[in-house]
This record gives sequence, structure tokens and C-alpha cells, in this order.
Amino acid sequence: MLVLGLDPSLTCTGWGVIRVDGPRLSHVANGQIATDAKANMAARLHHLHDAVYAVIGTYAPDVAAVEEVFVNKNPHSTLKLAQARGSVLAACGRGSIPVFEHAARLVKKSVVGTGAADKTQVQAMLRVLLPTAKVEGADAADALAVAIAHAHLGKH
Amino acid sequence: MLVLGLDPSLTCTGWGVIRVDGPRLSHVANGQIATDAKANMAARLHHLHDAVYAVIGTYAPDVAAVEEVFVNKNPHSTLKLAQARGSVLAACGRGSIPVFEHAARLVKKSVVGTGAADKTQVQAMLRVLLPTAKVEGADAADALAVAIAHAHLGKH
Repeated sequence: MLVLGLDPSLTCTGWGVIRVDGPRLSHVANGQIATDAKANMAARLHHLHDAVYAVIGTYAPDVAAVEEVFVNKNPHSTLKLAQARGSVLAACGRGSIPVFEHAARLVKKSVVGTGAADKTQVQAMLRVLLPTAKVEGADAADALAVAIAHAHLGKH
Repeated sequence: MLVLGLDPSLTCTGWGVIRVDGPRLSHVANGQIATDAKANMAARLHHLHDAVYAVIGTYAPDVAAVEEVFVNKNPHSTLKLAQARGSVLAACGRGSIPVFEHAARLVKKSVVGTGAADKTQVQAMLRVLLPTAKVEGADAADALAVAIAHAHLGKH
């Protein structure tokens, strides 16, 4: 089974595809989709949507996994994040793949062993769990982490 | 010029197209896109996205207009709304039309003459301003109102 992990954000959405073969995980691909901060909101959301749809077309994942939304204290940030997320999830719907949501704390716990793990610990564990992966950046790392967590948590 | 007004929501997104010919407005079409509450989030967001994209394909509006996001006190409601909005705005980006945002208060003031107008007053004014329109429902009415406000406010 192929799992597409997604870390949606308006500025830069991370994605990562892993193969799950029973207890064995392997890296397939990862990347980051940056949008032009000078473009209008509709164009940026469309860019995210189309790029995620293209990833689905290329790798044909069976399911997608995202972290549950983090409600930021700044409502403006939460809105921007949720709009990006809506556009990205619509691309999964367009690609006919179901999307599973996992709490951020469970993702960290599942990958590192503790829900309080920081980004550095998550990235260090990625090097152990997916040794062949060349991770494009922090957002792609978060996306691979949620894909791994989905495989571990087994809701598929 | 054709203006597409949009009133995004996950449950039911309203849309309305008007023609703006100098100071004259006329109704072109309106409708509502309801999603299946039992379907998964990605499928519902995709449904909204595709249906709005189909409206853009059918009527070829020059611009779209939406109300600025209302930040609900319930963060869960705000997130659902913002995700629906993201999916709908991405469809405008896909259709290459710019999206303009107007404050809810200005939309009401522009249509009814007061920013404190209620839904009934807005709908009564629609019957005056667009007498030939058969309005499909309250969400379509809100979408036509934002399209009219955009014509009045003149940011195009």
C-alpha cells in the first residue's frame, strides 16, 4: 500500500509518499510545493491544488494522511492554513483517495516515541526509518512523518 | 462585465452571476451546491470545487466576489468554513478569474443601505434590484448580494 502524507500550508505544502508492506516501510518520493506570495489567494490555492493532484496522478497512492488542524491563536493564520488545507483535501477528493486525520501529538509519538518530540527529533527518526530518503525540507519531513504515523496507527 | 458572487460553506455553497453594464445590473443565473453530509471531507470539498469550476466554465464570469471570512466563535465551524472557502477559491484560480473580498457589513450596506440589514431585507432588495431572478435559496441570495455589492463598490 502507498500512503501519501501531506503537510498543507499556503506558503509551502509538504508531501511524502511511502510504501507500506506489512511492518516494512520504504521511501518512494517527497517534495515541497511553494506558492508565490505575490500572487492572489485564488491562484495560490489553485497552485497547491493542482500540484497535489499531480503528485496523486504520478504516484497513485491508496490513501492520504494529514495532521488534524492545529487551531492557531491567531485567527488569521488559522484561516489561511484551513483554506490551504481545503484546497489540498479537495485535490485528494478529485483523485478519489480517502484522507485520514491524525492528531499531531500521536504523529510525533508514533514516529519518535514521545508526543512532545521536536522537529529535529522527528527528522532524525526519519533518517533511521527511511534511510534512502533525501528529504527536500522541513515541510516534506512533516509530511513523511504523518505518512509513517498513518502506517503505524493502522487506520487503513 | 459578468460578476460571480460566491457564498462558500461546506454544507451548501451559494453562487450567483450578474451582468454589470455601467450602472445597470441584470440577473444571469444563480444556484446552490449542497454536499452529502455522509461523504468524507475530501469528497465534499472536491464536490464544491468541481461544481464551482463548472459554473465558471458555463458562464465565463470576469471576476468573482466573496465576503471576507467571518471568524466564528466556534473554531471548529471556522475551520470547516475556511476549508470550503479554500476549495472554492482554488476553483476560481483554476478558472483564472480574480477573486475580490468585501466585508459583510459593506455588502449589506451596499445592497440595502445599512450594514445592519438582516437576511429578509437583503432578499427583499434582491427582488427590487434583480426582478427577473428566481433565487434558489438563502445561500444563492447571499451570493447574488455579494456580486451586486462588488458591482457597486467598483473594485474591478
